[in-house]
Amino acid sequence: MTKSTAEAPPFEAIGIVGCGLIGCSIAAALKQRNFGGRVVGCGRAGANLEMAVARGYVDAVENDLAKAAAVCGLLVVCTPVDQIANDVLAAAIGCRPGTVITDAGSVKQSVCGEIAHKLPPGVTFIGSHPIAGSEKRGCAHARPDLFVDHVCVLTPEAGTPPEAIGRLAGFWESIGMRVVAMSAELHDRALAQTSHVPHVVAAALASLLADENRRFTAGGFHDTTRIAAGDPGLWTAILLANAKETAAALRAVGERLNEFLQVIESRDKQSLTALLRLAKQNRDAIAAGILPSDATGFE
Amino acid sequence: MTKSTAEAPPFEAIGIVGCGLIGCSIAAALKQRNFGGRVVGCGRAGANLEMAVARGYVDAVENDLAKAAAVCGLLVVCTPVDQIANDVLAAAIGCRPGTVITDAGSVKQSVCGEIAHKLPPGVTFIGSHPIAGSEKRGCAHARPDLFVDHVCVLTPEAGTPPEAIGRLAGFWESIGMRVVAMSAELHDRALAQTSHVPHVVAAALASLLADENRRFTAGGFHDTTRIAAGDPGLWTAILLANAKETAAALRAVGERLNEFLQVIESRDKQSLTALLRLAKQNRDAIAAGILPSDATGFE
Repeated sequence: MTKSTAEAPPFEAIGIVGCGLIGCSIAAALKQRNFGGRVVGCGRAGANLEMAVARGYVDAVENDLAKAAAVCGLLVVCTPVDQIANDVLAAAIGCRPGTVITDAGSVKQSVCGEIAHKLPPGVTFIGSHPIAGSEKRGCAHARPDLFVDHVCVLTPEAGTPPEAIGRLAGFWESIGMRVVAMSAELHDRALAQTSHVPHVVAAALASLLADENRRFTAGGFHDTTRIAAGDPGLWTAILLANAKETAAALRAVGERLNEFLQVIESRDKQSLTALLRLAKQNRDAIAAGILPSDATGFE
Repeated sequence: MTKSTAEAPPFEAIGIVGCGLIGCSIAAALKQRNFGGRVVGCGRAGANLEMAVARGYVDAVENDLAKAAAVCGLLVVCTPVDQIANDVLAAAIGCRPGTVITDAGSVKQSVCGEIAHKLPPGVTFIGSHPIAGSEKRGCAHARPDLFVDHVCVLTPEAGTPPEAIGRLAGFWESIGMRVVAMSAELHDRALAQTSHVPHVVAAALASLLADENRRFTAGGFHDTTRIAAGDPGLWTAILLANAKETAAALRAVGERLNEFLQVIESRDKQSLTALLRLAKQNRDAIAAGILPSDATGFE
């Protein structure tokens, strides 16, 4: 179901709720790709929203969520994970029938669960996770190419209208993403491994760095801990929203680190090399862009 | 004792033993900075040595270590950690009195310990660790600016002639490094935290990545695991050469990850945010280039 060529997003007006890094990058991408409809920025008055206007990412600003919802066929809620459900439900009150609402949160079960069965008739919510980001925040760091060639996961449910799924997929594809649909549960399990636990691990390393050892860090430490510079509040919300899967994946990392510890302490050269080889093989596969054969498309 | 301006290295001929990434980057840096003396490449015949000649990094090649040693006032042994001591002792046989030998290994206690009291009279070995590198290997990836503004640790011992320390410091400063002297023990403890354990952690994360989750990785996972692409053989040698300190620092990471696990499982928002804040504070200090006041110079 992945389209080979990107087309204009199938909506006349798109509302971006939360004009930070992600929201403004989406808006910037729409403008760069000559989206013909209106882009409405929505959120608290402030520097981000002002910059979104000044840079031409949005055509208009509307501080009232329900009012923004009334004029848009698609709403993309880009607020922090622990605010998404509230914002979706507040916006839904103002939506016309046929409106599609989605989000950009990196946790899906908790968000989708809080919204389920609470929407007005004719309004559809489908969870999205455009897998791209930065440790930086705010409209000032928005990039129109942030999403290009990245995967966007959709988490439709059994009763989600296929037409709405198709239109939403078309929207993300229009800004360069490869769309994959899966359950919120499988998404959260995968992302615990690929994003949430790496964040914890990077934070653990950074948190232990003695001041006097800072001068002995180089590229390796810098890269390994880069994401630890991410916003503590945003990440607290993400880790707690996906606590169960994160904890399970974190235990797996703890066990693997214990294996390393054992082979290092017992000077088991062969086993240590085997572990490092497996790691290199997996990391090289990423660098080579090797994807499983069923890499994109709906499952 | 750090010089404010780099001067020419105080040697007429410098031998580079092992012409891989580090050796060729040193040679390239000398050439770029118009070192007037000769640079002699030494090592096994092969693609690296041929490329070092073809690119003009070295003026001459000598496959026999003792013969190379005979014509150089400084030898920089850039072979893998588990070969350094052997190469230093093999070279020392050919050295003239007054020759300084150093290395570029990221572990110092084991290397220096294997060499101690085994050198001919008048030949001085001082351990060096230029803290810069790459997950890539070989002369093909050499960069003359690899060391600029990075720290180089020297590990002289009680009986090391101060004049030799000064000349060696001058050499590393001549290619742009900031020289710090400390004991091999303190070096190994610091590097376990800033380099060896981050490598293990990156490898643990990469080794656990399920093939089907590769498509759900983005910048965070890529950065956190980048160094896991490093050579398994080289890293086995490093981790085993610094096994005691690496194990101790790895235990500390395991304990910190357990703290994260506990606050996530107990949904302790405040403690989780506090841990993430500490991590961000430490990581931001690196990005801001904040160094302790005694950041460089001899201690």
